[in-house]
This record gives sequence, C-alpha cells and structure tokens, in this order.
Amino acid sequence: MGGRKVRFGILGCAGIAEKLVRAMLMLPEQVQITAVGSRSLGKAQAFAARNKLPADVKLYESYDAVLDDGEVDAVYLPLPTGLHLEWVTKAAEKGKHVLLEKPVAPTVEELDEFLAVVERNQLQFMDGTMFMHHPRTAQMQQVLRNSQVVGELREVIAVFITDLGVPTGWTSDIRGQPHLDGLGCLGDIGWYCIRLILWAYDFEMPHTVTAHSGSKLSDTGVLTVCGATFEWKDGRIGTMRTSFLGDMVMKGICAGSKGTLEIDDFVIPKKEDLASYRVKEATVWEDRSIGWGSREEVHQVKTSLPQEALMVQEFSRLVSNILDGGVPEPVWVTVARKTQILLNAVKSSIESNCNTITL
Amino acid sequence: MGGRKVRFGILGCAGIAEKLVRAMLMLPEQVQITAVGSRSLGKAQAFAARNKLPADVKLYESYDAVLDDGEVDAVYLPLPTGLHLEWVTKAAEKGKHVLLEKPVAPTVEELDEFLAVVERNQLQFMDGTMFMHHPRTAQMQQVLRNSQVVGELREVIAVFITDLGVPTGWTSDIRGQPHLDGLGCLGDIGWYCIRLILWAYDFEMPHTVTAHSGSKLSDTGVLTVCGATFEWKDGRIGTMRTSFLGDMVMKGICAGSKGTLEIDDFVIPKKEDLASYRVKEATVWEDRSIGWGSREEVHQVKTSLPQEALMVQEFSRLVSNILDGGVPEPVWVTVARKTQILLNAVKSSIESNCNTITL
Repeated sequence: MGGRKVRFGILGCAGIAEKLVRAMLMLPEQVQITAVGSRSLGKAQAFAARNKLPADVKLYESYDAVLDDGEVDAVYLPLPTGLHLEWVTKAAEKGKHVLLEKPVAPTVEELDEFLAVVERNQLQFMDGTMFMHHPRTAQMQQVLRNSQVVGELREVIAVFITDLGVPTGWTSDIRGQPHLDGLGCLGDIGWYCIRLILWAYDFEMPHTVTAHSGSKLSDTGVLTVCGATFEWKDGRIGTMRTSFLGDMVMKGICAGSKGTLEIDDFVIPKKEDLASYRVKEATVWEDRSIGWGSREEVHQVKTSLPQEALMVQEFSRLVSNILDGGVPEPVWVTVARKTQILLNAVKSSIESNCNTITL
Repeated sequence: MGGRKVRFGILGCAGIAEKLVRAMLMLPEQVQITAVGSRSLGKAQAFAARNKLPADVKLYESYDAVLDDGEVDAVYLPLPTGLHLEWVTKAAEKGKHVLLEKPVAPTVEELDEFLAVVERNQLQFMDGTMFMHHPRTAQMQQVLRNSQVVGELREVIAVFITDLGVPTGWTSDIRGQPHLDGLGCLGDIGWYCIRLILWAYDFEMPHTVTAHSGSKLSDTGVLTVCGATFEWKDGRIGTMRTSFLGDMVMKGICAGSKGTLEIDDFVIPKKEDLASYRVKEATVWEDRSIGWGSREEVHQVKTSLPQEALMVQEFSRLVSNILDGGVPEPVWVTVARKTQILLNAVKSSIESNCNTITL
C-alpha cells in the first residue's frame, strides 16, 4: 500500500465500533488506533479492555478531546444519526477525515451542512456501508455490466428484514429513539436496500420515489416496517422492503432481460471469508410449458479480509494519499448523498400518504 | 377414487389446452375426453392429431356443438378472458361443469355474472391455477401453519417475470390484445402472485391495495410491467411484482417472525415430478455481527402426477361427486372471486395514479 499509517480516533463506544476496531487491528501496516473517546472514561476503559486495544491507545472522557488530539488523522464516528451534524462538523473543523456510520444524516439538509465543512477542509469522507468494499460486490458489478449475462437490468428488488426485538428491549436501542435515530428501519436497514438498488443501476438516480402503503411505527414513533418503489424514466424499477419485525431476510434480486443475479446476504455475508451469489440465465421452457430450466451457477468469492476491514483499508488509503499531498476522492460523498436523497424521499412519501415524489 | 368417469369437452385449441389434454390422458380412470370444439374443423383435427387424441373423440367446428353434446359433463375453457362471460354462461346454461383458465374474467362484475349462472345450475367451477394442486403447496401450507417454524407470517413477496417477447411477436399473442386479454401481465402472471399471497395468508382479504408506480403498457395498450402492495389491517404485507420484459423469475418469499419459506418456481415447478422449497429459520448473529447463520433446509416433494393432472383429477372428483347426487364444492368460486377482486383493485389503483383502494 505504501504511504503513511493513518492514526484513528474513535468517537463513542457503540456496539458497531467493536466490529470496526477489530477490523482496524487487522490492518497493522495501514492503521493505528490512537484514541478512543466516550462520554465516560469508564466506558472507554471497558471498551479498550474488551477489544484488547494496545496500551498506548489514549482513552478520553469526551469526544472533543479526541478531536483536539493532534496525533489523530481521522475519526470513525459511530454516534447516533441525530448527533452526526454536531460531531462531523466539529471533527471536520479540526481537520479530521471522517469515516461515518450510516444512515449518515436525518435529512439531506443536515448532510449537506456537514459535508460542506468536510469539503471546505479538503477532507476524506466515507460512509460505513461495508458491503461496497467486499470483492463480491466488485465481481457482481462485472456480471451486471456484461451485457451477455443479465442483459438489460430491469427490476432490482432489495429486502432486508431483521428481528430487532420490537417491542421487547426496544427502548434500550438507539434505533427506537426518534431524537437519536429517527429514521427507524428506513435508515438502519433501508439504507442498504437503497444503496444496493442505486449500485445495481450504476448510481443513476431514479425519476420518482413512492412509498408502499402499510408502513408501521413503533410506539416510540420510528418506522419498523416500510417499503418503496423507485422508478427510472426508461422504466427500470427498484423495489425495497424493510422490517424490524421478522427473522432475517437479506436478499437482493437483480433481474434483467437475459438473466438474474441473486444474493441471500448482501449486507453482511453469512461467512466472513467466503461469500456467494447466484446467476441464472437463458431460461428455456419445456414443450407445452410442463417445466423449465435455466443455466444456473453459484459463484463463491473468497476474501482474506472481512468487508469492514477492506472498507477501513480503502478509507485509510485515501486518507494516506491526502496526507501525502493528494486530494479527497469525491465518490463517497456522491454515493452517500444519493442514498440520503432517496432515503428522505421515501420518508417524505410515507409522510404524505404515499404520494409519488418526483426528483 | 370411485364414481363416474367425467366426460370432458374442450372449448378451443389454445396452447395451454395441449398441456391440459396431456394431463387428462394421464387420468384414464377418471377422465374421458369426449369432444373438442374449435372455430375451424381443421384446427380441431390438427389439435387431435398433435395431441394423439383417441379416435372416438368428437371434433366439432364450433364451441356450441360441444355444449349441445349430451355426452359432455364438463368443459375445459381455455378461451381468451374476454370471451369467458359468453362461453361460461352458455356452458352453464347447458348444464356443463366448468374448468376455466385464468384470469377468470376481465372484471369482478363479469365474473359475478357468469358465476351466478354456474351456481344457479348447481355446477362445479374451478379456475385453472395449477399450483394450488401440487402436493408441495399442501406441504408448504402445513409449514406456514406450524407456529414453530415461520411463526407469524408478516411479509409475502411474489415475483413473476417472464419474457413474452415484447414487442417482437407481440401482436400474435392474445395477451397483447386488449379486447381478448386486457389485463396483460397483471392477469396472466399477476393472477398467480395474488393467489400465492392470498394463499399464504389463508385467503383472508387485505384491507388496502395500492399499485406501485412505474406500470408499463405495451403499444397495444395492455400492461407489461406492474406491481402492488397489499396491506392487512394487522400490518401484514403482500408485495407483488410482475413483468413480461425479463428472463424468468418465479419467486415466492413468505417471511415470518421466526423464519422464511422460499420457492423459486411457485407457479410451474421446474421439474414435473420433483419440486422443492426452502425453509430458513432461527437466525443467529455471530459476536460483533461479523456473520450470521440460520437453520436452512431444502425440502423436496415428489409427485407421480404433474400439478395440472392433479388439478383435473380434483375437478373431476368434485364433478363425479355431483353426478352421483352431491353438491358443488364452493371453495373454488370463493378463491377465484377473491383473486379477481384483488386483481381488479390493482388495476383500479393503476388507473387512478396509484391511489390506495380500500376494500
């Protein structure tokens, strides 16, 4: 990789941070965890112990202290969405590059407000959408771009259902608290569905966004079930279903004129080192339609590093490049913004009785 | 089985009729093909030759002649949907039991008009939804009703995409001609999606029906792409996507609180004698969500008769029962009517800019 090692500060000790810290520790050549900040020193200490952080990691009793640390190049920010504006802005004003958990913001306006500070300070930004960095995703992209396989892509269906234990235990989860993560299942898991749909259509933006009827709210007032249809001007369709109320479904279906690509674990592969996807093409009916068959193949993709480590590695490569005099890679701002725009369009549609939002 | 052999007349030589005739010939103990009527004698003769019909099958140059034949107990009616009102009415008035291709009618009103004649004459009615009769369907129903497996069913997703060669060759297909089959993909393949969703929810009717944005029409004016969301009062959701514009997808996903049942060929099994479905349950996350796993099982269901033969067999059993003094089984009227109501609600929603239709 070359370049300087990137020195990370971590803002907050959320559960997801343990996954990222583990990933960072897999990258000793590229990443150094320099500091961890929490609202309480005890929490930071427990976090350091639980995650076997090296003894030289500085533990701070505030997020500000991490941002004031001159030895921190970049921050990983797993705070609740409602706190992103404040802390990304502060981090960027202190010249820290930002790896930000998703959903990146409650609204496009807040996102644009803190992205402006990030861009003004020539900092690298990346949202924490890990699956973008799995080699499977790159391989699937090649499949989708090969006109001989799936052909013209026409329907993308993304379904993410996971049991968040609603209503039992709900109030202890930040995702149930409107002022912290007001987007509920739309932000937490719909983010990935929207991203998959955008990714499949090469990040072209749809023309319209229409929520499905039947959205549900928790008693705390956040979405627990919702869905939406995205429509492109040329007739391509994206369909998203998300729910906090069922056993796991994590499915992506990319259906085209010649074949279909399907994934059963698109957000987080079941296994860390081996992920699969299926391609089905060239369906042929038997005489009198008594049966049918397609060419079907299961593709396995190995990875020596899990997708979250590949994400940290790529972010660090970009930061390192800036530390060596380069400029920020803008693609991550672009895709985060597009995802956020669609996410908020779904929310607007839900709030206006499923009216179609024209972008 | 016992009972009398049912004597069938076939109205029309549509492609689908060849599949049904083949099925009838598999049931020599229960079924006799007595007559075939076509608008041209040549077509009827070619049909008889192509399908190796016994020499004693009477070939008629009109549909009326079949209905006037006193040796015909029941008719199989594969005529275009736009002709169902006329010919089911005539058949019922002549005392013939009716096995009717789907979609059964262009509108609920037309359906009710001819069903009234069928019921007034105490005749058996069944719609040609073959998958209802596959032993896999009965087995899956047991899975869905077992509260220990899928648990409370919350999301049913039915996707049927098939390449109908639009626009090439489109005009030669009755499904592209509004006066014959005006419901397009909604009637032809959406019928099955709606039926699967209704079936999964034990034929309880939803509270609302809302079409998805992005429906497409062929240049002849019939639907080639559409989708809809069905919402039950208690929050259960059904999602349907259909398209004539892509390589085959024929997927059903029944997602519940504890697990998911999934089928890749719910309308027509890929293989005639062996069909499968998958059950995935009890998902567990690995520590730090670095992966996840579920109990997964593929179930194989053998059948000695294909589903269309099982359908004819069941219809014949019901007719035979009536011939022996019994009364019609009303369930098939009920499920056909419910399917038609939802189908037309989707159409109404499409025609009213995706307004929600409350049933």
